[in-house]
Amino acid sequence: MVILASGSPRRRELLTQAGIAFEVITSDADETPTKTVPAEIVMELSKRKGEDVYERLEREGRIDKAGETLIISADTLVFFKDERLGKPKDKADAFRMIKELSGDVHDVITGVTLAYVNQGQKKQVRFFEKTEVSVYDLTDEEIEAYIATGEPMDKAGAYAIQGFFGKYIKGINGEYANVVGLPIARLYHEIKKLGCKEALGRA
Amino acid sequence: MVILASGSPRRRELLTQAGIAFEVITSDADETPTKTVPAEIVMELSKRKGEDVYERLEREGRIDKAGETLIISADTLVFFKDERLGKPKDKADAFRMIKELSGDVHDVITGVTLAYVNQGQKKQVRFFEKTEVSVYDLTDEEIEAYIATGEPMDKAGAYAIQGFFGKYIKGINGEYANVVGLPIARLYHEIKKLGCKEALGRA
Repeated sequence: MVILASGSPRRRELLTQAGIAFEVITSDADETPTKTVPAEIVMELSKRKGEDVYERLEREGRIDKAGETLIISADTLVFFKDERLGKPKDKADAFRMIKELSGDVHDVITGVTLAYVNQGQKKQVRFFEKTEVSVYDLTDEEIEAYIATGEPMDKAGAYAIQGFFGKYIKGINGEYANVVGLPIARLYHEIKKLGCKEALGRA
Repeated sequence: MVILASGSPRRRELLTQAGIAFEVITSDADETPTKTVPAEIVMELSKRKGEDVYERLEREGRIDKAGETLIISADTLVFFKDERLGKPKDKADAFRMIKELSGDVHDVITGVTLAYVNQGQKKQVRFFEKTEVSVYDLTDEEIEAYIATGEPMDKAGAYAIQGFFGKYIKGINGEYANVVGLPIARLYHEIKKLGCKEALGRA
């Protein structure tokens, strides 16, 4: 059994594209970090989401003692000069964020936790992936027009690289899928190292 | 009038995503380069494709003397240690290419030519965009499984970053869309500099 502990349609799409069959169980974990370093924040939050789902499955007796269970949880944040940019509160907040990112370079960091149980043996792997994103200068009119598309409102940093904002992305350094919300190549690589047959069956 | 001188469905999708309305007129230009330097090869081929379409429009009296005409032409190639990788001839050729790219870094270079006519005034802009692509190590079984998806056969370098091969892409340095086949952000930026109102109308 492979579980994605995230309701994000973008993460679902990336996992599917990698040929991994899974079901979605979202977590109710508290998303207030105790850490302050970007990479530690996203790893802490991914760990909390994964453990929340693990504990629920365990309570419900759904951890397969004879087979494999893999829980994939992730948290993605945008950092601009160490300021953490979450989802914008409103259009003015989206404008402020995009204005900051415009003509500059920022980081997108995803923390991932893999909780893997194989025949009763439990292993946990945690990692983060960082991608630098360089954005062209946007005029205020371009920012307004982009906000009017409605795309920014549910995205950390107020933009979607895979959407209309793509034409403003000068370049990236790192994994592209990480900016979409899940570093799928790194994740696939880590799953191979874990040896989870169920996740790799359809590769 | 904005024209994309390419039949590639991927380039069409990228231009549409950038909000540019266009029609497709493919070129019959000879694609044998006289140049040897990667960036010069792709610029030469993009120029030839663009000029072929321009001359055809001119012969047919379709260049709008009072308005704007913009012809966008592009050529994308994959270079591995200066060896040019085109589309694979067959499955064995695809295997050889992917085996070469596996566990290493290669370059994807797109040359773009913009032929812009505004009220009878003609301008030509040419540029190239290079993206470095780093690929995880693939086992022979993974290469075979990837070839069996059918994806490699019509792609330069025998892979599609936006397809099933995404899970093997460790990271990139440069524009992502460039690896798909058209550096849409750079292109949009150059069109803004040219000032082509028709292409920017729906931005």
